[in-house]
Amino acid sequence: MNRMELETLLREFQQGNRELAEVMARLEGWPAQDLGVARVDHARAARQGFPEVIFGASKTTGQIITIARALLERSPNLLITRTSAEVYAELSALVPEAVYHEAARAITVRRDATEQGKGVIVTVCAGTSDIPVSEEAALTCEVMGNRVERLTDVGVAGLHRLLAARSVLQQARVIICVAGMEGALPSVVGGLVGVPVIAVPTSVGYGAAFGGLAALLGMLNSCSSNVSVVNIDNGFGAGYVASLINRL
Amino acid sequence: MNRMELETLLREFQQGNRELAEVMARLEGWPAQDLGVARVDHARAARQGFPEVIFGASKTTGQIITIARALLERSPNLLITRTSAEVYAELSALVPEAVYHEAARAITVRRDATEQGKGVIVTVCAGTSDIPVSEEAALTCEVMGNRVERLTDVGVAGLHRLLAARSVLQQARVIICVAGMEGALPSVVGGLVGVPVIAVPTSVGYGAAFGGLAALLGMLNSCSSNVSVVNIDNGFGAGYVASLINRL
Amino acid sequence: MNRMELETLLREFQQGNRELAEVMARLEGWPAQDLGVARVDHARAARQGFPEVIFGASKTTGQIITIARALLERSPNLLITRTSAEVYAELSALVPEAVYHEAARAITVRRDATEQGKGVIVTVCAGTSDIPVSEEAALTCEVMGNRVERLTDVGVAGLHRLLAARSVLQQARVIICVAGMEGALPSVVGGLVGVPVIAVPTSVGYGAAFGGLAALLGMLNSCSSNVSVVNIDNGFGAGYVASLINRL
Amino acid sequence: MNRMELETLLREFQQGNRELAEVMARLEGWPAQDLGVARVDHARAARQGFPEVIFGASKTTGQIITIARALLERSPNLLITRTSAEVYAELSALVPEAVYHEAARAITVRRDATEQGKGVIVTVCAGTSDIPVSEEAALTCEVMGNRVERLTDVGVAGLHRLLAARSVLQQARVIICVAGMEGALPSVVGGLVGVPVIAVPTSVGYGAAFGGLAALLGMLNSCSSNVSVVNIDNGFGAGYVASLINRL
Amino acid sequence: MNRMELETLLREFQQGNRELAEVMARLEGWPAQDLGVARVDHARAARQGFPEVIFGASKTTGQIITIARALLERSPNLLITRTSAEVYAELSALVPEAVYHEAARAITVRRDATEQGKGVIVTVCAGTSDIPVSEEAALTCEVMGNRVERLTDVGVAGLHRLLAARSVLQQARVIICVAGMEGALPSVVGGLVGVPVIAVPTSVGYGAAFGGLAALLGMLNSCSSNVSVVNIDNGFGAGYVASLINRL
Amino acid sequence: MNRMELETLLREFQQGNRELAEVMARLEGWPAQDLGVARVDHARAARQGFPEVIFGASKTTGQIITIARALLERSPNLLITRTSAEVYAELSALVPEAVYHEAARAITVRRDATEQGKGVIVTVCAGTSDIPVSEEAALTCEVMGNRVERLTDVGVAGLHRLLAARSVLQQARVIICVAGMEGALPSVVGGLVGVPVIAVPTSVGYGAAFGGLAALLGMLNSCSSNVSVVNIDNGFGAGYVASLINRL
Amino acid sequence: MNRMELETLLREFQQGNRELAEVMARLEGWPAQDLGVARVDHARAARQGFPEVIFGASKTTGQIITIARALLERSPNLLITRTSAEVYAELSALVPEAVYHEAARAITVRRDATEQGKGVIVTVCAGTSDIPVSEEAALTCEVMGNRVERLTDVGVAGLHRLLAARSVLQQARVIICVAGMEGALPSVVGGLVGVPVIAVPTSVGYGAAFGGLAALLGMLNSCSSNVSVVNIDNGFGAGYVASLINRL
Amino acid sequence: MNRMELETLLREFQQGNRELAEVMARLEGWPAQDLGVARVDHARAARQGFPEVIFGASKTTGQIITIARALLERSPNLLITRTSAEVYAELSALVPEAVYHEAARAITVRRDATEQGKGVIVTVCAGTSDIPVSEEAALTCEVMGNRVERLTDVGVAGLHRLLAARSVLQQARVIICVAGMEGALPSVVGGLVGVPVIAVPTSVGYGAAFGGLAALLGMLNSCSSNVSVVNIDNGFGAGYVASLINRL
Repeated sequence: MNRMELETLLREFQQGNRELAEVMARLEGWPAQDLGVARVDHARAARQGFPEVIFGASKTTGQIITIARALLERSPNLLITRTSAEVYAELSALVPEAVYHEAARAITVRRDATEQGKGVIVTVCAGTSDIPVSEEAALTCEVMGNRVERLTDVGVAGLHRLLAARSVLQQARVIICVAGMEGALPSVVGGLVGVPVIAVPTSVGYGAAFGGLAALLGMLNSCSSNVSVVNIDNGFGAGYVASLINRL
Repeated sequence: MNRMELETLLREFQQGNRELAEVMARLEGWPAQDLGVARVDHARAARQGFPEVIFGASKTTGQIITIARALLERSPNLLITRTSAEVYAELSALVPEAVYHEAARAITVRRDATEQGKGVIVTVCAGTSDIPVSEEAALTCEVMGNRVERLTDVGVAGLHRLLAARSVLQQARVIICVAGMEGALPSVVGGLVGVPVIAVPTSVGYGAAFGGLAALLGMLNSCSSNVSVVNIDNGFGAGYVASLINRL
Repeated sequence: MNRMELETLLREFQQGNRELAEVMARLEGWPAQDLGVARVDHARAARQGFPEVIFGASKTTGQIITIARALLERSPNLLITRTSAEVYAELSALVPEAVYHEAARAITVRRDATEQGKGVIVTVCAGTSDIPVSEEAALTCEVMGNRVERLTDVGVAGLHRLLAARSVLQQARVIICVAGMEGALPSVVGGLVGVPVIAVPTSVGYGAAFGGLAALLGMLNSCSSNVSVVNIDNGFGAGYVASLINRL
Repeated sequence: MNRMELETLLREFQQGNRELAEVMARLEGWPAQDLGVARVDHARAARQGFPEVIFGASKTTGQIITIARALLERSPNLLITRTSAEVYAELSALVPEAVYHEAARAITVRRDATEQGKGVIVTVCAGTSDIPVSEEAALTCEVMGNRVERLTDVGVAGLHRLLAARSVLQQARVIICVAGMEGALPSVVGGLVGVPVIAVPTSVGYGAAFGGLAALLGMLNSCSSNVSVVNIDNGFGAGYVASLINRL
Repeated sequence: MNRMELETLLREFQQGNRELAEVMARLEGWPAQDLGVARVDHARAARQGFPEVIFGASKTTGQIITIARALLERSPNLLITRTSAEVYAELSALVPEAVYHEAARAITVRRDATEQGKGVIVTVCAGTSDIPVSEEAALTCEVMGNRVERLTDVGVAGLHRLLAARSVLQQARVIICVAGMEGALPSVVGGLVGVPVIAVPTSVGYGAAFGGLAALLGMLNSCSSNVSVVNIDNGFGAGYVASLINRL
Repeated sequence: MNRMELETLLREFQQGNRELAEVMARLEGWPAQDLGVARVDHARAARQGFPEVIFGASKTTGQIITIARALLERSPNLLITRTSAEVYAELSALVPEAVYHEAARAITVRRDATEQGKGVIVTVCAGTSDIPVSEEAALTCEVMGNRVERLTDVGVAGLHRLLAARSVLQQARVIICVAGMEGALPSVVGGLVGVPVIAVPTSVGYGAAFGGLAALLGMLNSCSSNVSVVNIDNGFGAGYVASLINRL
Repeated sequence: MNRMELETLLREFQQGNRELAEVMARLEGWPAQDLGVARVDHARAARQGFPEVIFGASKTTGQIITIARALLERSPNLLITRTSAEVYAELSALVPEAVYHEAARAITVRRDATEQGKGVIVTVCAGTSDIPVSEEAALTCEVMGNRVERLTDVGVAGLHRLLAARSVLQQARVIICVAGMEGALPSVVGGLVGVPVIAVPTSVGYGAAFGGLAALLGMLNSCSSNVSVVNIDNGFGAGYVASLINRL
Repeated sequence: MNRMELETLLREFQQGNRELAEVMARLEGWPAQDLGVARVDHARAARQGFPEVIFGASKTTGQIITIARALLERSPNLLITRTSAEVYAELSALVPEAVYHEAARAITVRRDATEQGKGVIVTVCAGTSDIPVSEEAALTCEVMGNRVERLTDVGVAGLHRLLAARSVLQQARVIICVAGMEGALPSVVGGLVGVPVIAVPTSVGYGAAFGGLAALLGMLNSCSSNVSVVNIDNGFGAGYVASLINRL
């Protein structure tokens, strides 16, 4: 129920076409569909520009299918992250347009491919092991209607690889920068461009990497002022923020 | 030295108007003015759209004045953060346009007030104690050419204060959300809007707040997907990122 | 041995009906039944209003059955947490009234269903993945003689879902609030009501959630003053505290 | 604006006595008085049973006086925590009923001394150094209308001191248990009684006490199930929760 | 080579019965038998009163057997910790006196059962889940020639169980106190006796127990001055220290 | 009230010389003198062999004097740790036997100098900066009736300094080993002797020493099995444990 | 493209033999071969003296083989760390010179065995469990052309084992020192020699070893000034640094 | 006492010119001069190539002067770190050659300026605030007989400043790299050169820099293999290690 609907409701009430009890009930909340295991928030599309995404990691296949179907009834596109080929097998029987992306462990449904972004989003990733997170970010951007360029394996220890790709960086409207270990890449990339850089620390590394903590702290302390950070391994979050920025 | 100047240099060299040694020296780097205590990066304006900012916290008054004068020779605007009335007293004798902002502990020089942002940036802060960080963010936005709306003391324990200001939130193109303690505000604000939210944890709190760690972790784990995070108390960084986004 | 029994014992001793040695032995302790693997504390019911609960996680099926039988000899009700269908299979052969609750991984025996609480306890949980902990809390309340209302999947990123359920919250005498990730729900719920809120952080989340640490710190730093906190994933503890409050 | 006022407002609107614009404005929020530095939440008394408390630590004397006066206009009682004799000197000139409590570093105004609690709250503290936090808790309870019994210096290393006071513990309706160092007191106290125990870790200790972290972790892991925990040194929070419970 | 042997060596050298080179070689070190995978320190018995113990956790069965045989050639007794029934099966074929202790996951060989301790060592453990660590400590004491009394499941939440066993505690010459969760037991036990208490934190617990960290911090901050602490789950270390003390 | 007094009390009661009420009151606790700010535990001497020690750090001079006088009425010796010359000035006016030890920041009163220990306690400290903690340990031992040998500045980086003092180490009945930075000294000392080693980590160091955490972890993980550990900078605790051991 | 090639390129451009566009493209970067999954940095040999090493842990067998073949086309030697016998089986079919080292879980190809180091590198390891890391370091040194001496199981608790090997230490040009648990070995070794010591903490240990954190902190705080540290379990890094030093 | 002196001693003993007792005493250790507050290790020069350095931070002026004089009697050069102008004032009266370095807070005495290093050591520092640590490193190198080149304010956010100085980096035999905040500089520098890089994290930064922890973790996880790390702010340690390497 948006502002306009609220106004209509109140006018109808004023004109005697609505009961007090009904109006009060409506005023207490906005619609949310209760599926038992989840309360699906269909209004999010209106509020935020993209329907709910299914975080597959802690859900059973059955739960994912139930939620996916409910979402697809009202929304053309869908993203399921941290999922598996098993879920895909079951879903694709029901939704043939579904695509499984192995590197990103994600499923997308993209029945509406209208371009919504105004420019190109570039994903930059430091090493081969960061690709799953980087791909999750790239797919999120694509399913939200953006063009994406990918730069892979351009870590700071071999700086020339990154410098050689400077022209790619410079055409970006937003950059997503994914790195594990010391997480230094966003600082260097951030210093080369004048656009926002969304940094994603990954849990790649060993020993004192402490599951991504080293990269996270590195990125939060970046000396490049155009860097902001999302959670460890949160490729989806980075893609979501980048997509919102690219729509502006 | 930007791409155009590089092209010019190379053409002059090709035409015999430049020595090989000179060209190689130029190719090894870009200009950076060495002031002894600092290497001022005048090219940053070209690369990133805003000249260097002076982080005042660990510098003497003399160092700040030296760097400020070097920057103001080439750039109309200036921001000095984490500074004091003492520095201001000395600087304003030299630069009468300088303004001291007590709440934010910052000095601004704004000789060029052209609006560069395309919309309004809203700063939201949870409590009275978060104001210094929030003001640092707002001033950064203003000195970078943006219109700013400020929402103060709208923490989540009294939700109606935030909900009452929803119309302000909804007109924002970017939101900066500043909170200490549990840092829950960005999750709630993020759920109410469809634009990027830059979250700034503050060191406000006591006990298990651990100097902003609780708020930082809270914001990194936000269940609102449009939230990205900068360092604890880093109002400047949030303002910088928000300004870049608002220019797009 | 309560105060009255102590008085009796002393009087009998005074009247020459008890030996000094016997009295001194009794004064050194209170009854506790030694089962070899555990010292069952039958006096807890007298002291605390509910018999010992079996924490199943680190015990063998045999140990659980042994302790369960000893407890059920003196107490009508029983709760076994962090257990499995295997334990249930064996126990239900001996105790047909036993019920297995899959979502909560718990077994209850409820031969006495007298209502002991004076009002309703509401359990609120942020997301689908928090349900196991939330259910453990709800079951604990029920087996201790309380009426429980459950609110599921009302996380703060979609605030309207929570606001829509405000009338449920407002009828609660105590609220149990379960959330992972940033753990912001208790702050928001706490601000909406005037009753005690028991917050339970869960280990749900990834990356910088650090196994529930982010949620735990968030809840400890809650800006709502009516919030107190129990251990990560400790649904039982929350249910126990809420039940004691609801009996007052 | 409570439910009843909302109903009245809507009826008046229905009868043509209110404009649509006015109703919509009112529906957007509840009253909050904007003092510039703070948004005072007068509705909290209605929602939560006690007006806002002033956390003095990070506010200037002027800010505290301003907020205190605004609150005292509508509410008979007031609590200012983490404050000083200086603030008291200034406030008592305006509000002669104000009392300064040195041990707790708190100011109370108690113009309404109606007893609101149904029983006695007992505060138990482990050592002499824990008294400031313990007193803050006790004063909070008193200003919220409760009778309080104080037990001081009954740490677990000299168990007989605590056992000697068992009769005091057993008459409590709620217990607040304050301890630093290893924070073991709530576990022992919790095992002796059948009522809720609110545990407050303090920053008392040295070395591996890590500013209260050891006590906090100890209390969160308490093997007594009737213990819940508030933030380190948060005597006010414990007193607030205990008061809410004692009113039930 | 002890002091006496050194004296003999030097005298022989003085009398011309030893070459300079030989003496210098001997002076560079003491004997240590190189088994390839390990350098067995046979001199430890002389220096420390007990031969090397085999920490089985990170060794293959073959490595354990090799080292065990080398040690048993020179020493009557042996202790293997963190081992398994598989290792036992193989070892007992070679060393029929070997005994496997399932609860402690340890193997002992005790061909010399001379009592070496002057009094009784009491092991106290808080809960059923702490038994493996507690048993490792008790076995270490026994294989080093001490009488041991075991108190099990006497955690502080049911204080009377511990108080009932006070007479056992009071006959101890040294106490080993094993607890997980909040680790409060050593503080309480320490307050009841006047002998040294060796505290062993265990990794028992969940959530904010953080693998034994909560118990460890609790014990290090014990307000009982007679408590010292060994590593998490280090039953062997506690038994070793207690045995040395009991020999004095 | 010890066991004998309890027996007497009960016999008198049996013979009709005591009232029931009186006996029950006595049974509820043991004596503890309430000084307002502290509950002095005079029974500790009986239970633990040494009266309470005053931890001066968080107490006012007045509080320390009050407690000191109460203790000295019943006990010949006294130790005040973490105190200052100011407290000494005031105390020595009342108690001329008091001695101030500047390096250890401690005051001792030693009116009874009977030797209680059976051997020598050796304190070993790694560097000059560790002396305050080491001296606190040594003084504690002395005031509790032990002979002490001190080894100073024998850190592991110059191993020969320690090896040169091996004969001192080998005559010890107990060793207290004090070190900051990496805390390696107890492992090396522990390997050279066959007696218990009490390790004290100090907060000496910088950077990643993290206030003694590095030394603490080092000592807890010592590969020498005869090492147990007390809190960071807790010289008193180490001296107390060593004294108890040396009395056996 | 090294300096010489750059000079040539520019001269050719000056002489009209190169197009401007081509020169500008070349100036933007240096060569890096894009294999899809990785960007192989063939220039590293020129810049750093050794080709890229394959970190096998997070790569599929297929990826490793692909990268290995690309590297071996231009470089005679190769090192694959954290790999398995499976990878070896596949690689050795293609590259018969490949050798699998089980203890180090590494594969080496050494077609060029020229000695590049000027002296001997000694690897010292504290215990049997540290051997995998120590061997990874030793192999790295050997494949980079160094002579290596290995000292195994010489932990500080049995100091004589290390002292007996002092002559080995003293012939080293660089020492690699590998230890888990308290990580004290580098401090002791560092004190015995006058050459650089590269310390490698290992994740060996339990309880408060926290996966190598205790050893890491110990080594960073070493009181021996000739110690520098690499990441936990990073045998390769230590070997690489030691090899560079030994070439000087 | 070195090997040669030991040999002499033994020969003299063999020839009857030394008593047994004397020889045994000498064999128990090596010389260390006991100054009361410190045991000065004159043999370190022989063992490690440089006399002891005085860490001034935790010593009184008197202690520093005492130790400095003892060292200067036997050694031409001296370094005092973490000291002050006050100490200098007193020392320079006694030792006129002493020089005070304000930026590094250090005093040097350099009576022997023989060059001992074989090449140039380059110190690179990221920002102005890192200069004190960087200067401490540079001074250590100089007082140990090395030529030093300093690069200041070349942080990774303005990469061209570093690239412009590449020729300086490439002439280094060893590089010391000093950075706070995210500590990314050593990774980038390490990738540009083929010599050892000693990384020094500094405590420069705020918020999630956590006193240098972020930079420390970043450097330990560096993806450049030629990087090893010393403690936070440990400029001296880095200079010491670099000097040892440069002598090889």
